Amino acid sequence: MSALSESIRIVLVETTHPGNIGATARAMKTMGFSRLSLVNPKLFPHAEATARAAGADDILETAQVHGSLPAALRDCVLVYGTSARLRYLSCPILSPDQAVSEIVDVATKGSQVAIVFGRESSGLTNEELDRCNKMIVIPTGNDFSSLNLASAVQILCYELFKAHSENKLPENYMKGRVENATSDELNSLYEHLQECLVEIGFLDPDKPRMLMRRLKKLFNRSNLDQNEYNILRGILSAVQDNIRQK
Amino acid sequence: MSALSESIRIVLVETTHPGNIGATARAMKTMGFSRLSLVNPKLFPHAEATARAAGADDILETAQVHGSLPAALRDCVLVYGTSARLRYLSCPILSPDQAVSEIVDVATKGSQVAIVFGRESSGLTNEELDRCNKMIVIPTGNDFSSLNLASAVQILCYELFKAHSENKLPENYMKGRVENATSDELNSLYEHLQECLVEIGFLDPDKPRMLMRRLKKLFNRSNLDQNEYNILRGILSAVQDNIRQK
Repeated sequence: MSALSESIRIVLVETTHPGNIGATARAMKTMGFSRLSLVNPKLFPHAEATARAAGADDILETAQVHGSLPAALRDCVLVYGTSARLRYLSCPILSPDQAVSEIVDVATKGSQVAIVFGRESSGLTNEELDRCNKMIVIPTGNDFSSLNLASAVQILCYELFKAHSENKLPENYMKGRVENATSDELNSLYEHLQECLVEIGFLDPDKPRMLMRRLKKLFNRSNLDQNEYNILRGILSAVQDNIRQK
Repeated sequence: MSALSESIRIVLVETTHPGNIGATARAMKTMGFSRLSLVNPKLFPHAEATARAAGADDILETAQVHGSLPAALRDCVLVYGTSARLRYLSCPILSPDQAVSEIVDVATKGSQVAIVFGRESSGLTNEELDRCNKMIVIPTGNDFSSLNLASAVQILCYELFKAHSENKLPENYMKGRVENATSDELNSLYEHLQECLVEIGFLDPDKPRMLMRRLKKLFNRSNLDQNEYNILRGILSAVQDNIRQK
């Protein structure tokens, strides 16, 4: 479990209630996880967080606090957003079952994976969702989808723990697979792509419409590896060289 | 779900913290369950229970309060106890996965099933355990098995919901998803891409190496939809228009 625990972080964005941060730490620890990142928590550290952690104080003490979501995701190769509702175009939506088998595969290799949970009241913004490769939706009963934040963390950590303990793959299973592009690399690819689309006149910066969001969604869900990332950057540079020679 | 919900009750024995009763109601309702029985709760009703129910007040209002566990189990044909520890040897011990498939089988036939959760600090007594047909143990990490009461309820209700719905996301989760690009379309995209890469000098037709295969692999696994296909074709045409104007 320790390798998995080192590679998977739970990221809470702008959590309002410190009790939920403590309950999240407890939920993580029961399933053997320890890496907690907090993006602009409203109140932290806080007595209510410590009380609800109920013995998982060590996770609160080592929690990383960040000023922005990108800072919390810097070295992650795979980022999963979570949502109770579908309100986001056609980014791949996974059930917890589907997500955890992917996550365990990547994380057991040592690559960093983040699972991002939004605000209690309003979830994640579209800009934050654009940072996610895929979405996880925990299925709920039809008329009441108001899952508590720490309960959602509990379910996913439980599924991860189960998947890991049921499903140990031989170590050489992933041999030959190249490291994934990081979240920062993807972002620089998107900036490069946008610059290039403006130069070829395909994107009007004054009327961007949904173009970049659609393209980000496509590449976010493709799990680009380092080779593919380099190829795409190379193609964009070659296009620019050609145009600029005019 | 309604038949299942009518046949499965969650029983909390001598709960100390009213907040846990509210959080249990919320956890149940998110997964479509509604029958809550309380055996000698320390404080109930209570403002903290209502606050933590966060919209599941109806479950608190209809909760049955009993003076003893046998009274709460009167019409049940199957009773499952829960425990964080293996300390009771005389009845079968199941994982949540194993338990829920049995429970769903029995409950969908209309028989009454109870899942019993003990005190926050000390669980169920041996006398109470003697009332249970089987035990459910939720697996946890080795060094910290202190699962919150409502979190344990959440995990079991989630597993029951999943077992019942076979883990299918409601159809409307995928609404707005556009038809996928066809195999023929993908192929014409690859031809267009190759033509374009040759024109910008990124691909040497005499030494193609693995470039097109790598790019095909990337887009093959991306499940391009019609919109994305059209956008990519549009970008390639815009690049060619720009180059050819030279």
